[in-house]
Amino acid sequence: MIESIRSPRDLDGLSDNDLSLLAREIRDKIIDSVSKNGGHLSSNLGIVETTVALHRVFDVPRDAIIFDVGHQSYAHKLLTGRYDKFDALRQYGGVSGFTNRDESEYDFVTAGHSGTALSTALGKAQANKLGGSDAFTVAVIGDGSFTNGETFEALNMCASSDKLRLLIVLNDNEMSISKNVGGLSKYFSRVRSSRKYYDFKRGTENFLSKIPLIGRPIAVMLKKIKDLIKRIVVGVNFFDALGVSFLGTVNGDDEKRLEEVFKEAKRRASCCIVHVITKKGKGYEPAEERPDLYHSVAPFDKNVGIVRKSGGFSEKFGEYMCDLAATDDKIVAVSAAMTDGTGLGDFAKKYPDRFFDVGIAEEHATTFCAGLSLGGYTPVFAVYSTFAQRIYDQMIHDVSLQKAHVVFALDRAGIVAGDGVTHHGLFDVAIMSTVPNIEIYAPCTYAELEKTLKYAVYASGPVVIRYPKGEEIACGDFVGTNVLCDAAERRDVVIITYSRLAKSAVGAEKMLGSAKTVKLLKLFPIDFDELDRHVDGAKLIYVLEEGTKNGGVGEKIAARYGERVHVCAVDGFVPHGDAASLDALLGFTPEAVAAEIRDLIK
Amino acid sequence: MIESIRSPRDLDGLSDNDLSLLAREIRDKIIDSVSKNGGHLSSNLGIVETTVALHRVFDVPRDAIIFDVGHQSYAHKLLTGRYDKFDALRQYGGVSGFTNRDESEYDFVTAGHSGTALSTALGKAQANKLGGSDAFTVAVIGDGSFTNGETFEALNMCASSDKLRLLIVLNDNEMSISKNVGGLSKYFSRVRSSRKYYDFKRGTENFLSKIPLIGRPIAVMLKKIKDLIKRIVVGVNFFDALGVSFLGTVNGDDEKRLEEVFKEAKRRASCCIVHVITKKGKGYEPAEERPDLYHSVAPFDKNVGIVRKSGGFSEKFGEYMCDLAATDDKIVAVSAAMTDGTGLGDFAKKYPDRFFDVGIAEEHATTFCAGLSLGGYTPVFAVYSTFAQRIYDQMIHDVSLQKAHVVFALDRAGIVAGDGVTHHGLFDVAIMSTVPNIEIYAPCTYAELEKTLKYAVYASGPVVIRYPKGEEIACGDFVGTNVLCDAAERRDVVIITYSRLAKSAVGAEKMLGSAKTVKLLKLFPIDFDELDRHVDGAKLIYVLEEGTKNGGVGEKIAARYGERVHVCAVDGFVPHGDAASLDALLGFTPEAVAAEIRDLIK
Repeated sequence: MIESIRSPRDLDGLSDNDLSLLAREIRDKIIDSVSKNGGHLSSNLGIVETTVALHRVFDVPRDAIIFDVGHQSYAHKLLTGRYDKFDALRQYGGVSGFTNRDESEYDFVTAGHSGTALSTALGKAQANKLGGSDAFTVAVIGDGSFTNGETFEALNMCASSDKLRLLIVLNDNEMSISKNVGGLSKYFSRVRSSRKYYDFKRGTENFLSKIPLIGRPIAVMLKKIKDLIKRIVVGVNFFDALGVSFLGTVNGDDEKRLEEVFKEAKRRASCCIVHVITKKGKGYEPAEERPDLYHSVAPFDKNVGIVRKSGGFSEKFGEYMCDLAATDDKIVAVSAAMTDGTGLGDFAKKYPDRFFDVGIAEEHATTFCAGLSLGGYTPVFAVYSTFAQRIYDQMIHDVSLQKAHVVFALDRAGIVAGDGVTHHGLFDVAIMSTVPNIEIYAPCTYAELEKTLKYAVYASGPVVIRYPKGEEIACGDFVGTNVLCDAAERRDVVIITYSRLAKSAVGAEKMLGSAKTVKLLKLFPIDFDELDRHVDGAKLIYVLEEGTKNGGVGEKIAARYGERVHVCAVDGFVPHGDAASLDALLGFTPEAVAAEIRDLIK
Repeated sequence: MIESIRSPRDLDGLSDNDLSLLAREIRDKIIDSVSKNGGHLSSNLGIVETTVALHRVFDVPRDAIIFDVGHQSYAHKLLTGRYDKFDALRQYGGVSGFTNRDESEYDFVTAGHSGTALSTALGKAQANKLGGSDAFTVAVIGDGSFTNGETFEALNMCASSDKLRLLIVLNDNEMSISKNVGGLSKYFSRVRSSRKYYDFKRGTENFLSKIPLIGRPIAVMLKKIKDLIKRIVVGVNFFDALGVSFLGTVNGDDEKRLEEVFKEAKRRASCCIVHVITKKGKGYEPAEERPDLYHSVAPFDKNVGIVRKSGGFSEKFGEYMCDLAATDDKIVAVSAAMTDGTGLGDFAKKYPDRFFDVGIAEEHATTFCAGLSLGGYTPVFAVYSTFAQRIYDQMIHDVSLQKAHVVFALDRAGIVAGDGVTHHGLFDVAIMSTVPNIEIYAPCTYAELEKTLKYAVYASGPVVIRYPKGEEIACGDFVGTNVLCDAAERRDVVIITYSRLAKSAVGAEKMLGSAKTVKLLKLFPIDFDELDRHVDGAKLIYVLEEGTKNGGVGEKIAARYGERVHVCAVDGFVPHGDAASLDALLGFTPEAVAAEIRDLIK
């Protein structure tokens, strides 16, 4: 069945049986590819019927479906001409793990960060309206993304936007990677269980209708009361307060019913929201049982399930945090819906009072940390580098300016191979080094992580510790604060680098013979007194940087040492793929570094 | 009366008459100082009684009052020992126009950006709870700031925060600088007018109680219905949905009633919200009539009122936008609650369908623009430079990565003298130059603004045009793309600068005799081919930059030309004050520049 779907319109003639079969085949394909290549599993298994129903009711790409974050778009990809390529999911040159404009006209945006779908959708829907088009725009947003402020900012605008042909699908699986948090999550939960309100309402009506004296005035009044009750009963009050029409709660398994509700939205031609209850991991038992474990996975044996998720830097970070917290009850930890992803699961269990998961709300997390610091505590905010792009203003305005002491543990700094373009952490050093009074460290071993974390919690002001995804980098003896090599040892070529690329630098150094490698642990402020001694007499200072060139460490080193400096860093966006392919693409392999240096010293 | 209040505890013994007199005196003092020095008028006049009531009920600084944005803290300042210094409001070395930690222990944070108060307050309240303190935390937040996503992210967390001693004061004056927008604003308006719902409820009860057959079952049911109705009637549904207790709506003139409600919040010792209706401009008739005009003002004659607000760059930007929109119906304009501040008032009137005020929601505004662009329109987002610090991730993820074409008109780039530390636009160039495929322009005359804007709307990708607050800079003939001087003319000293400081550079050039000035219009990517010709043979390249040194244009120029380059730029935070004092502080006067250059070439 699935092979015959070359485009969404091939879904039109399918029978109910065909659709059931198709859903099963989609799930099998997803389980196969994800277990082979890694990727997002739980959310994609939950949203199969919803995706089928959307594509049967809406006419993409004329209509646009915008998946928030885009990690739940696998079924969408399989239905939009990418079945044949799906075995290469997340591989270099293969299908991306998120929606991607360059990959297909069916993908309206290249996505990866939370909370942006409704804003984009409002823009597209408004453009349609201005241009007189009756095309529809659909934003598919997980309940977790509703904790994000940008989603709220966009929701608030819906009421000011008359006659927009826009449907919001609230994909509610009670998750935000981990269990969803906060008042809105509790509210969704009440709506989910609103069946009992319905029952209550029915009971009331029957009871009243049996009383003989109820005349017209009571009936009118009763109607008013019923309307009021209805507003509460069907759980419309939150969205109603914001002026967005709530079309009801639908079971995400029920493809027929989903089609009906989506058609109703289409008929209304105004901004509506549908609440769809989906089940994370549906159709793969281990994922149904542990949807968080199977949210984002490395390759695994699908017949066995995940044996143990290897922890790397994240796990070590969590361990060190527990160690520090044991000796100092002022240390608290904050996560933005990434408790397990950042290794804080054990901390959260051991120190529940001192652990805060604030939802997908990085801005709030940062300012909240500032408040904790001004209140006498030492907050450590663990956040992926790419998502920390959202907290620049808060680092300036709420942390640095207040002289608050907040430690930022930036996980997944540098290349994040399989996730790709929206998930690489390549901008943090450039932008954060502009924050007054900040310090930035880049440990590349667990020992360095432990040392810098211990230092950071007793420092002052904002301190950033950035470390890569995965395991520590073993490439020599990293004893000493900043460097690998002997300052007294003069060489013609000095390679300056940090983090994961130390390995490539040392590799190139060995190939060249005449070079030495300086590995920076402290990236900012750069210790130029120490560097001066290292580069003394060098003809070429080669900076190897897994980060953006503009504003990066290389640029600062070039500003100091002038024309002797050559910077090999990242320019523009980097696609997904295995680390080896990406290193080759970026000129980051030992061979490429050695070759370029040979060219330069000619 | 007001002179006798040296600290909030001096309020304790005052009679009702004393309090009325005090409120009048506070208003008079505010009107006097603001009309003399400029500042925020309307909001400060509205919140006098609320501030008095807060200080009578809460014990600051043991308790903390956190004013969102902080521009409405003038009464707070007058009650916390700053009456004597208040004549120097916003002057160099004088009282800041916002709350400021360095100024007083009564100011919990140095504020200026919207949407951060509740996050900070949650952090402080949580710290109190962890430390076993029963101190209270109050966040005073305008209705406009409730359109901001970070406020929502924090609100969502309130429900997960048991037993926090935290009060949210929703200061509702129906404004967000301009008229507030969006679903939440409409909702607040319904709550304000909820008296009619109350009346409906009373009528219902009376009517039913007269019907004889109503027995116990009906009574029980009626109770349930009443509870349900109450939830709607008192307008608690939005906050209820989020799990925050709503204590009701209070008239902001009624100091006694405000005290009662604040005491009730204190008694509950959990996270509560009070909705206070205040009147912007209260007590100064011209401001009551035109609260938007008197939101943030330059000095004016209080007996006459504001004659005409001078427009400068903002006004010209608005004019050019109207011109462009007249010839191209694809051009649309977006504002984040700064319609008048950014000069878009006329555009909004002339092209209401193509103008979007999204509320204080810069992140959403940016992604919304991306959606408009992908839908075939050309959005221009006008935003103050300092607030654009919030849109870094959206510029990367939603604009640049999608190859969307969005023009960012950054108003108030550079020093914003009177507003000070939270309002200077000093970081935009450094961070935005890291966005792939971006172009950044810095017009310093109206003609340059017109030219770059015309260019930008027909360019591609993200384009930033940044211009200072106030009038154009007249300091010579600025014809030509990038420069003031003749490339063929060799000089020992080349001063490279942009924007407002061109005037200082030309002044220094004249004093030195042996220098020439290169004024950049395009800041990024830097046209190094052109610059190479200008600096050829120069012994000193002096970069004069009204922006942060780390990551700025000067650093990039130094990375190109090495040790010949000296950068005079901003390092760290800059206080408020008149422009001349700040220029002297920063070494930006012609005299200071000339003197430093003389030193360097010795």
